[in-house]
Amino acid sequence: MAQTIREGDDVLLYLSRKRTFLVKVERNKSFHTHKGYVHLEDLIGKNYGARLRSSMDTEFVALKPAIRDYIFKMLRKTQITYPKDIALIVMFSGVGPGSLVVEAGTGTGALTSALAFYVKPKGHVYSYEVRSEFIETASKNLKRSGLAEYVDIKNQDICQGIDESEIDAVILDLATPWLVISHAYSALKGGGALVSFSPTIDQVVKTVEALQENGFVDVETVECLVRRLQVARGKTRPETLMTAHTGYISFARKAIVEH
Amino acid sequence: MAQTIREGDDVLLYLSRKRTFLVKVERNKSFHTHKGYVHLEDLIGKNYGARLRSSMDTEFVALKPAIRDYIFKMLRKTQITYPKDIALIVMFSGVGPGSLVVEAGTGTGALTSALAFYVKPKGHVYSYEVRSEFIETASKNLKRSGLAEYVDIKNQDICQGIDESEIDAVILDLATPWLVISHAYSALKGGGALVSFSPTIDQVVKTVEALQENGFVDVETVECLVRRLQVARGKTRPETLMTAHTGYISFARKAIVEH
Amino acid sequence: MAQTIREGDDVLLYLSRKRTFLVKVERNKSFHTHKGYVHLEDLIGKNYGARLRSSMDTEFVALKPAIRDYIFKMLRKTQITYPKDIALIVMFSGVGPGSLVVEAGTGTGALTSALAFYVKPKGHVYSYEVRSEFIETASKNLKRSGLAEYVDIKNQDICQGIDESEIDAVILDLATPWLVISHAYSALKGGGALVSFSPTIDQVVKTVEALQENGFVDVETVECLVRRLQVARGKTRPETLMTAHTGYISFARKAIVEH
Amino acid sequence: MAQTIREGDDVLLYLSRKRTFLVKVERNKSFHTHKGYVHLEDLIGKNYGARLRSSMDTEFVALKPAIRDYIFKMLRKTQITYPKDIALIVMFSGVGPGSLVVEAGTGTGALTSALAFYVKPKGHVYSYEVRSEFIETASKNLKRSGLAEYVDIKNQDICQGIDESEIDAVILDLATPWLVISHAYSALKGGGALVSFSPTIDQVVKTVEALQENGFVDVETVECLVRRLQVARGKTRPETLMTAHTGYISFARKAIVEH
Repeated sequence: MAQTIREGDDVLLYLSRKRTFLVKVERNKSFHTHKGYVHLEDLIGKNYGARLRSSMDTEFVALKPAIRDYIFKMLRKTQITYPKDIALIVMFSGVGPGSLVVEAGTGTGALTSALAFYVKPKGHVYSYEVRSEFIETASKNLKRSGLAEYVDIKNQDICQGIDESEIDAVILDLATPWLVISHAYSALKGGGALVSFSPTIDQVVKTVEALQENGFVDVETVECLVRRLQVARGKTRPETLMTAHTGYISFARKAIVEH
Repeated sequence: MAQTIREGDDVLLYLSRKRTFLVKVERNKSFHTHKGYVHLEDLIGKNYGARLRSSMDTEFVALKPAIRDYIFKMLRKTQITYPKDIALIVMFSGVGPGSLVVEAGTGTGALTSALAFYVKPKGHVYSYEVRSEFIETASKNLKRSGLAEYVDIKNQDICQGIDESEIDAVILDLATPWLVISHAYSALKGGGALVSFSPTIDQVVKTVEALQENGFVDVETVECLVRRLQVARGKTRPETLMTAHTGYISFARKAIVEH
Repeated sequence: MAQTIREGDDVLLYLSRKRTFLVKVERNKSFHTHKGYVHLEDLIGKNYGARLRSSMDTEFVALKPAIRDYIFKMLRKTQITYPKDIALIVMFSGVGPGSLVVEAGTGTGALTSALAFYVKPKGHVYSYEVRSEFIETASKNLKRSGLAEYVDIKNQDICQGIDESEIDAVILDLATPWLVISHAYSALKGGGALVSFSPTIDQVVKTVEALQENGFVDVETVECLVRRLQVARGKTRPETLMTAHTGYISFARKAIVEH
Repeated sequence: MAQTIREGDDVLLYLSRKRTFLVKVERNKSFHTHKGYVHLEDLIGKNYGARLRSSMDTEFVALKPAIRDYIFKMLRKTQITYPKDIALIVMFSGVGPGSLVVEAGTGTGALTSALAFYVKPKGHVYSYEVRSEFIETASKNLKRSGLAEYVDIKNQDICQGIDESEIDAVILDLATPWLVISHAYSALKGGGALVSFSPTIDQVVKTVEALQENGFVDVETVECLVRRLQVARGKTRPETLMTAHTGYISFARKAIVEH
């Protein structure tokens, strides 16, 4: 059944691949861009995907924001975990519908949202954040993307310990992941996954050593590069610039000794 | 609550990062490797993650297979869609719990399994495969990974048309994706996602042109490179060899004209 | 024997890796930067490598410009052939002291200068350029880098033919390299090298086909990516951005039929 | 003037891009391959580039070995410095005709040969090698490529000091480059270049720190990735496998304090 846009819905106004705007549909409100304004009220009752025209007669498309769109819009502040890395973190951690996940730090909630999106409706994310100034932003972001009910944000230092146990995956994106490894081991199920994202080599080395010393196996570190292709008949070529580095992703699984 | 291994369960016997074995736990059966054999019966009642010793006193770890493990084990035959690509396809398509997805071709079911894993419990995957010799393998693979109930495999040529409508995402990994684009447009919801995976530039150009001519917007093509890091204090360095190319991933979203 | 800086010499004033200035040493002249000015006359009699201080007490280093520095400074206009590509073109073409080289197009003379630098003192470069507006700039650049005597710039369209024969290497960086291949074949010695640099896939395909149809063997196409590492104890990591694409480099060698 | 093949010359017998053979032309001698044998005497008097047929009627091409060919053939033993890296080392070091270069370690002489090739006819390479077992191989390789007269191989430990002074460039490819930095500083001209090639991050960090502490400026570290493109109309795509890592290349220039 086709979905129509309702008052209060989020819409991603698409102008071009590099120009999209995440807006909430409200009555008596316009959204202004350098290509003219759009009466947001006019969107009500339209189907997602609808083409519309701004006051300057420029075409926009009213898209339903996907999880990737929410993530991109949240990244403005910390600029660290890119969708490509989130995609690998989710896939390699085995997180999916029903998973119980511990995550730190919350930051602006980009990775948190992705994890919440994939664990719903039965799973849950426990997200630790020691910097209290981030918690409000993250909460607002999670609420906006409709995922708040799947997440507990905890204003605690995960380096001091993890409250939960029998967890499926622990996902770390913080400055000192190696200080969390022994706590993560305690919190995880046998065979559970640990994933850590770090920008520097030194963080990776310390974390991998901690993993090896704390009973983890299947330890692996990768980096992921994504390059865009400009596609046009007779002129196809890779784009000129690319992101050369976001961070390294380390994976491991908990092994246990049975008695 | 800890999960114990039961008769009939799949276990991933982990020897090293490059040596893992997917086995079904049965009574009166041994699993033989170049590092000795393991009595599978002995696994029953153990927790996942348990370390055990083979007849040659080599340590194995009994892991619960994650979706990534099933995918790796299924890839033996077609060797085309790598987990890194599957991860990006899933994230960029917006597929998640509850999504309705059309996919082609099924192949050995690797991408199919990943899609089924993420859409469960309420979503569904309709997977088209014209080569009947693949259908049995894919069915067996889906059954093994416990995901068969979320998938309909259809022995039909998707280039001839798509039966479903109001679909959230169409995912293509076949030789002539450009022949499917107009059918995909009809099958998708407004704003719905199309993702196509192709190894050659020529396929990409034809597909992107078909997308642009058939009412899709937000068209983007990327390639993804993953490089492993060998981590060891004082000797850390990237691995010597890597996969230089699997394929290009093209994304687009359906725009519609409202009347 | 140490080299001292003389009036009329070029000096590369180094402020930081991203801030260098190519200046000619003249009396009664200052060079102004956002970090203060330097009396160029003061450089006379100093050794290359000398540290000096600007009027704002910022340290500069007076370096002798290397061929790479000249190339970087020349690239401002066409921005196409990067030093990494020039390095591969030179190495893979076999060009060295004494080589006879045909090149097109001259452009601002960056690649021309590199070729001239390596063929001297006995070799020679014949550089074709159809766009007369480039010839003055290229001549000035070659003169400045002291390499003008090793180069003939010819205001001719290489697609119409090559005057020279028994050439060691033909190097192409122009829009339609495939139109030059048969002329290049005639101009080259048996076993001589052809190298072509092109930004788009379509140019590469046409050029490689022309090479295969015109008696060349050992045809190979590569692309080269260079990524910088930020090195600092405990914080080492690749740089955030990189050039994702400049162009593809195709190599081939002329085979002949003996009678 | 066309070059004909003479007795005693080296010829690169080309069968395919992956199958080439470096042979010395001798009378009464055959060269055997899995595609039949070639009478080497038959090559005498032919032009370079000549196509010929083996006893199994397979076509070979008799190419004049370029410096890159000698390098590839020498690399069999140490497998470390690839042509792409040699190309960047040469370009970024500023080494060219007439340069005076110090290098260590010699190894099998691959990088040494490249340096000798570019400095001739007036320049010279002083190559240090502490492992005496390599010296004979390197000497033989240099003699074969006709470059021996431009090189002094010295069976000395460069970590103990460098005999030469007023050198244009010092090129290091050895396990502990940081131990050579202060000696290199003494040996170099003002503004002279230092280039170091190392496979591990740890070597890079130590070397860069030594460069910064010993009066070098313009310090930069890069890695270079080369990917092949399979070119065929309608089927063009990057190759499946590539070398993911050979080593990092660090560059720097000597700054001096004038009194």
